[in-house]
Amino acid sequence: MFIPIFFILSFLFSSTNAADFCVGDLNGPVGPAGYSCKKTVTVNDFVYSGLAATGNTSNLIKAAVTPAFSAQFPGVNGLGISIARLDLAIGGVIPMHTHPGASEVLVVIQGTICAGFMSSANKVYFKSLNKGDIMVFPQGLLHFQINAGKTQSLAFVSFSSPDPGLQILDFALFANDLPTDIIEETTFLDAAQIKKLKGVLGGTG
Amino acid sequence: MFIPIFFILSFLFSSTNAADFCVGDLNGPVGPAGYSCKKTVTVNDFVYSGLAATGNTSNLIKAAVTPAFSAQFPGVNGLGISIARLDLAIGGVIPMHTHPGASEVLVVIQGTICAGFMSSANKVYFKSLNKGDIMVFPQGLLHFQINAGKTQSLAFVSFSSPDPGLQILDFALFANDLPTDIIEETTFLDAAQIKKLKGVLGGTG
Amino acid sequence: MFIPIFFILSFLFSSTNAADFCVGDLNGPVGPAGYSCKKTVTVNDFVYSGLAATGNTSNLIKAAVTPAFSAQFPGVNGLGISIARLDLAIGGVIPMHTHPGASEVLVVIQGTICAGFMSSANKVYFKSLNKGDIMVFPQGLLHFQINAGKTQSLAFVSFSSPDPGLQILDFALFANDLPTDIIEETTFLDAAQIKKLKGVLGGTG
Amino acid sequence: MFIPIFFILSFLFSSTNAADFCVGDLNGPVGPAGYSCKKTVTVNDFVYSGLAATGNTSNLIKAAVTPAFSAQFPGVNGLGISIARLDLAIGGVIPMHTHPGASEVLVVIQGTICAGFMSSANKVYFKSLNKGDIMVFPQGLLHFQINAGKTQSLAFVSFSSPDPGLQILDFALFANDLPTDIIEETTFLDAAQIKKLKGVLGGTG
Amino acid sequence: MFIPIFFILSFLFSSTNAADFCVGDLNGPVGPAGYSCKKTVTVNDFVYSGLAATGNTSNLIKAAVTPAFSAQFPGVNGLGISIARLDLAIGGVIPMHTHPGASEVLVVIQGTICAGFMSSANKVYFKSLNKGDIMVFPQGLLHFQINAGKTQSLAFVSFSSPDPGLQILDFALFANDLPTDIIEETTFLDAAQIKKLKGVLGGTG
Amino acid sequence: MFIPIFFILSFLFSSTNAADFCVGDLNGPVGPAGYSCKKTVTVNDFVYSGLAATGNTSNLIKAAVTPAFSAQFPGVNGLGISIARLDLAIGGVIPMHTHPGASEVLVVIQGTICAGFMSSANKVYFKSLNKGDIMVFPQGLLHFQINAGKTQSLAFVSFSSPDPGLQILDFALFANDLPTDIIEETTFLDAAQIKKLKGVLGGTG
Repeated sequence: MFIPIFFILSFLFSSTNAADFCVGDLNGPVGPAGYSCKKTVTVNDFVYSGLAATGNTSNLIKAAVTPAFSAQFPGVNGLGISIARLDLAIGGVIPMHTHPGASEVLVVIQGTICAGFMSSANKVYFKSLNKGDIMVFPQGLLHFQINAGKTQSLAFVSFSSPDPGLQILDFALFANDLPTDIIEETTFLDAAQIKKLKGVLGGTG
Repeated sequence: MFIPIFFILSFLFSSTNAADFCVGDLNGPVGPAGYSCKKTVTVNDFVYSGLAATGNTSNLIKAAVTPAFSAQFPGVNGLGISIARLDLAIGGVIPMHTHPGASEVLVVIQGTICAGFMSSANKVYFKSLNKGDIMVFPQGLLHFQINAGKTQSLAFVSFSSPDPGLQILDFALFANDLPTDIIEETTFLDAAQIKKLKGVLGGTG
Repeated sequence: MFIPIFFILSFLFSSTNAADFCVGDLNGPVGPAGYSCKKTVTVNDFVYSGLAATGNTSNLIKAAVTPAFSAQFPGVNGLGISIARLDLAIGGVIPMHTHPGASEVLVVIQGTICAGFMSSANKVYFKSLNKGDIMVFPQGLLHFQINAGKTQSLAFVSFSSPDPGLQILDFALFANDLPTDIIEETTFLDAAQIKKLKGVLGGTG
Repeated sequence: MFIPIFFILSFLFSSTNAADFCVGDLNGPVGPAGYSCKKTVTVNDFVYSGLAATGNTSNLIKAAVTPAFSAQFPGVNGLGISIARLDLAIGGVIPMHTHPGASEVLVVIQGTICAGFMSSANKVYFKSLNKGDIMVFPQGLLHFQINAGKTQSLAFVSFSSPDPGLQILDFALFANDLPTDIIEETTFLDAAQIKKLKGVLGGTG
Repeated sequence: MFIPIFFILSFLFSSTNAADFCVGDLNGPVGPAGYSCKKTVTVNDFVYSGLAATGNTSNLIKAAVTPAFSAQFPGVNGLGISIARLDLAIGGVIPMHTHPGASEVLVVIQGTICAGFMSSANKVYFKSLNKGDIMVFPQGLLHFQINAGKTQSLAFVSFSSPDPGLQILDFALFANDLPTDIIEETTFLDAAQIKKLKGVLGGTG
Repeated sequence: MFIPIFFILSFLFSSTNAADFCVGDLNGPVGPAGYSCKKTVTVNDFVYSGLAATGNTSNLIKAAVTPAFSAQFPGVNGLGISIARLDLAIGGVIPMHTHPGASEVLVVIQGTICAGFMSSANKVYFKSLNKGDIMVFPQGLLHFQINAGKTQSLAFVSFSSPDPGLQILDFALFANDLPTDIIEETTFLDAAQIKKLKGVLGGTG
């Protein structure tokens, strides 16, 4: 009786080997749908410990974002989801930013976080979130998170894409070589303000 | 100068009012893409506190799943993401189950959790996860989580859909009126075993 | 011979009546995939003349955006595409903005337009475009268009969604009630600069 | 022990009731993603006997197409698949047609069928298919099926959409009120040929 | 007159060569959307005869599944559809299983088949199907098929994906090295039952 | 202060480098989702001047289609959009055709164009369009454009895919080796008509 069952077993399974997942091969070709699939996988391709440690918040924003997107955690490649860790020291801020390719859900693990977003209709939605609260940020909209408490805060943020992108407003405007006069014309900011922030963030032009 | 600017402002924004999000109207019609959109929204539609409290684990599995899917948290409707809270008391288990409509990422907040899944190719991937570790479970595959430590465990699980579905194997087999002989034929389980579990889980037939 | 052919004709066609298009019923329920379908349509549902006239550029930005998104042109509902007209008077600017839900292709019909965008990797891509040139702006990234010539300019911009959304940076920051101190913290702009622009754009708080 | 288990049982399942399927309510609103979901379903919503009988082939084309698209079989609404039955009497032909919204796989159940399609690159792919052979027709391309044998033929065709659409070339050109001169200009067919086929198929103008 | 027409002909067609289909190159890189496209194709890439023969049902389940997924029939790669053949000898059973990546439509070609599925809401939907009847199984849900008649049965099953996956419950639980105590904890099955089925199906641990 | 900010800057951005766009590498592997991504890009990858010049209309149809699909303009690869230029001399016609993979929006830049399409329900929708008018053509349906004025006409057409495909009816039927008797059977056209058009368009068989 064993032989027939193993016959059908191997028959069925040899023919369905690629459907379930596509762990990213970071050295292979990349396409619009993500990385190529790694040929051999183990459980370690589906587990990641890179979010276990507190991020380094000794910086200007007193905050750290530690992503587990497909580039860091290739197990999510092709699966429509990813996650990141937010650490906010006292006074810490995740500055105004967007994720061009994903919606986000934040869950507060520790502390109090004031979070908000602005809609295409120009309305502001913001609120102070406590431990265990969740908030959703729709795809592509400007949003921010501020430590609103008197302790270190921690949150995890999940995304509806393995590769959500991250555009931080100040870095996009002031940390590259976009000419000051173009920034002035397209944002109505004063040249002095622009130059001041270019100085802080390393922008030129 | 104010009048022209407000003119274009209102002109532009009156014409782009529906794109950003679609908070679910639980009383309106539902379609394949989700609930209809609520007409008036506030920040409270995007925030949910239902995952803040520890779930009640005084039950057979010593565990609780508290979902924030679109039915509980209509703010995620149409946004391709949702989240849930897992509480596992000592000895707690989230039994073998699938999410037919989403991949899942788990992050351990507290305790130690042994988690695993089986692929279409019939291979098992399981590992013991510590605080801060994450694991991804590809869409539709059987998976499980077990409290592997000596303390209460807590995890958050995110999904690549606002409505991932949840099919618990034992409930699907033993907690409804699927006839015992059909279960026997399609699972090779013994009739006595089936009847025993139907007794525990409330199944008939 | 006529009867059988009309028999099969009506049989086949009565059974395939909804697949091709879904002209939006602006008064019906809206869901994540768009408006409900209008029951009776004519050719006029697929044609729109609202982009034929030059937009009114007598305003602060000396520019006008005239959209034909699903709210203005319900014929594109559900079809994955829409279009808008850009008019830029001499010195006109379409300020820094994003479309959270679509990529964009611009074609210059008249004049010279300096257009650009910034990537998640913080790099700037901008160029002066002449008549007939096209440029693509990937989904969700900050971008701008400036009349770089000495005449009125005209462009058409197409989008990969019937409802791409439009978030203008200055309006999102300075034309609503987002508190000045939150803007300060999340953008590093000086309070004086913020208040000046709130004054121009009608923001409060 | 029974009470806790039923507690969690009903808790879990009351919160995940809409994800699995969305049987179409043919009387409710329709959107780009399909029909609204029927509130109460039974097994009969997932089973359909309308393809069991041989189609009536006593017509000009000696063939019949019996669809089970979402309009006939609302159980497939939202599920990305549908099916139809093809009956071809001796000499029967399914004339040149396209499905604008789906790819198709045909399986021959009885007889011999010559089937083919033309690509965008203008190449022809056709072959004579025997019982048990399958052929795939990529989305939107012109294709045809001809009974190539000396007996009645039967095939089932599956589609990658619950609502694939069906545009039969001759009916699109000659069975409506598209003016003869427009057909002439856009197809290079002779006016006499056009008028002859309008006569057969009921076209005017 | 011939030269101009061929000029535009070759011009148009040289520029649109990749859109229609993407026959899988089984030796090229694979990504989340499927196999890479084969460079040269013939009609034989779109036709497959591997489902023409009756499957070998001389095995424990007295049944055979013969798939034409993208691994067997690369013509369906990227086209959102695939098909398989089910043969059920007298007493034959396709055991409880899921397809993690696709919905399924079954059509009975010969015999009588009792088929059913369980929903996330834990409800059972099953029915006896006769020749010509169709049934739809929503994506990712446990389902089964049993020969309910006194003759050999034959069905074709179509899927809403070129690579639907196939997870057979018993093989996932009892035909690999998942430890018995984990199975016990996550399924509530008795250790003796688990060991008995591991013995039959080749499982270890 | 500079060091910490650059630390987080480079940290954040090194980890999000692939999400925004995927300029096509025309020499790399192609998959169902499009070309592989080019490794190094400049602004010139996002700008294309190939639509700036009037197409050559000295041909049988007195018209020219100049595409900027992903094969010509790899910047749109993976972004869900593309564009083309239509030039119609006096008397010019874009013959009956379909785009199997995209919906289309046309905007008239110069002249008067009579445009139309036929639905699956066999209804005709056509209208004369003037400068600035737009019309949408739903995916996969037969449609046409005719210069209806007394001057050269110009239009731009946008598509909901970077690779919409293009199947011109006459070329599909009469410019390849599809046998005349198959065309006769599947279109009801007379053999003489078929042979005449094969002569003009270079078809054989």
